[in-house]
Amino acid sequence: MTAPAAQPFDAWVQDVQAQVERALETLLPAAATIPHKLHEAMRYTTLGGGKRIRPLLAYGSGALFGGEPAALARVAGAVEMIHVYSLVHDDMPCMDDDDLRRGKPTVHVAYDEATALLVGDALQAQAFQVLADIDTLPPARQVAMLRLLAQAAGSGGMCGGQAIDLDSVGLSLTRDELERMHQLKTGAMLRVSVILGALAGRDVSPPEMEALDAYSKAIGLAFQVVDDVLDATADSATLGKTAGKDAADNKPTYVSILGLEQSKELAEQLRREAHEALAPFGEQAQRLRELADLIVQRKA
Amino acid sequence: MTAPAAQPFDAWVQDVQAQVERALETLLPAAATIPHKLHEAMRYTTLGGGKRIRPLLAYGSGALFGGEPAALARVAGAVEMIHVYSLVHDDMPCMDDDDLRRGKPTVHVAYDEATALLVGDALQAQAFQVLADIDTLPPARQVAMLRLLAQAAGSGGMCGGQAIDLDSVGLSLTRDELERMHQLKTGAMLRVSVILGALAGRDVSPPEMEALDAYSKAIGLAFQVVDDVLDATADSATLGKTAGKDAADNKPTYVSILGLEQSKELAEQLRREAHEALAPFGEQAQRLRELADLIVQRKA
Repeated sequence: MTAPAAQPFDAWVQDVQAQVERALETLLPAAATIPHKLHEAMRYTTLGGGKRIRPLLAYGSGALFGGEPAALARVAGAVEMIHVYSLVHDDMPCMDDDDLRRGKPTVHVAYDEATALLVGDALQAQAFQVLADIDTLPPARQVAMLRLLAQAAGSGGMCGGQAIDLDSVGLSLTRDELERMHQLKTGAMLRVSVILGALAGRDVSPPEMEALDAYSKAIGLAFQVVDDVLDATADSATLGKTAGKDAADNKPTYVSILGLEQSKELAEQLRREAHEALAPFGEQAQRLRELADLIVQRKA
Repeated sequence: MTAPAAQPFDAWVQDVQAQVERALETLLPAAATIPHKLHEAMRYTTLGGGKRIRPLLAYGSGALFGGEPAALARVAGAVEMIHVYSLVHDDMPCMDDDDLRRGKPTVHVAYDEATALLVGDALQAQAFQVLADIDTLPPARQVAMLRLLAQAAGSGGMCGGQAIDLDSVGLSLTRDELERMHQLKTGAMLRVSVILGALAGRDVSPPEMEALDAYSKAIGLAFQVVDDVLDATADSATLGKTAGKDAADNKPTYVSILGLEQSKELAEQLRREAHEALAPFGEQAQRLRELADLIVQRKA
């Protein structure tokens, strides 16, 4: 790993994004291997786009915990694959029915629905394989990492959040209910990205885990609040996906519950909480601090 | 584990099926935990039905390799969850569009399509969690088991086979192509059930792995040949799913390529090959031998 703050943040982000792209290139099955179309579609939807927030978080805590580069690349690849699979399934007609993602036609549009279903299924399995194939970490830690990824992806994490989201269309959730939903839907995978990035370096002590959890919880919520703000204010071209969709779908959002200004204030407050959570790590946590700023200040 | 052949085979099968049912009851998230509907649907589709062929294979090789009971129950639960998730997704309108499975309405019929999508996604994650939560095996072996499960479930295994299957509708495959498709689609998960059952006991030597592979390959193909024979000859009530569907969907099958009689002969030949592969294990492999017979002689 590059030493913290050796580079300006923007250059570090670009550097990590390029590393993640290269890692995904090799961690995804080659399009030349059978079944070609499935592998091509897996690569189509995973490569060449996205903000790579989860990989950046993994690299950010990897920088703090001395992450081993090959393990970190696999952690970043695995969390991104889970994220991408969730987008592919979420975009399908039976879910959000979205045609545009990361500025490109979604998989069920570019290919077909059955392929989109299989692309998501195969990407999930691939994520676990990518973690299981790490050969530089103690096996007991690796088992723990696989367990954490499964928990974050499953019905007690991301899938559970999606299910609550589905059932809340047209309902008026309280702010607490909305928060719980997002803690599962996006928070669980953001948190596990931070934790797995740390574990790619060394064991994490209980107080360190607590600090990383507090940080993750704050940026997870901030991420969603900002998403809602952007959905209400940005245009589709900037977002690379259909804007204004949540309101059109009558989904509860922070903006619909708190209003636009209060939502922006909440995001800023969560950014400060994220910084405070990192205080015990001192200067070494610079990348995670900058990532909290990025999450709150992003424009897309 | 019960000593091999301590019970008549039928009683052993019923005993294992009951053990697997109890294991799944506790390995699946409780319906009382949030999100209720998702967990209820996961339990609806997984519990109370199915031949449990993959768990039986795991217990069969577990009996041979001295499988540790708690680990074996988790292996059986994990392979069944992957299988059930694949059925749920396969039954969806964008894939086979089937209304009936294991004699009950399919998940997208009993609930809705979005729930079916999430049930499958969450069951896949749960399978990896169930394996990762084993706490009685050496972690290095456990990592290997997680890797094998991911390979068998992903694009180089089950999902890959599904993708080839999708693309072969209306095409006339050669027998070799059909075999390759089924080795991925069903063979990979049947094989990994045998291997993981063995690894729940102890490390498997290369010659032992070779014998288990030869056995798995034979029963995997036999399973599919018999499936095709049953699809062409049995009725929906007996099968618990829609019969005659492959022919109606213009899918290549062993019956369409070889004819009914030759398909039956092939299944019988594969049964003998499975028995031969087990020769090195002697009497101890009795359950795996009986399972090969069950797979070929089943009526549903």
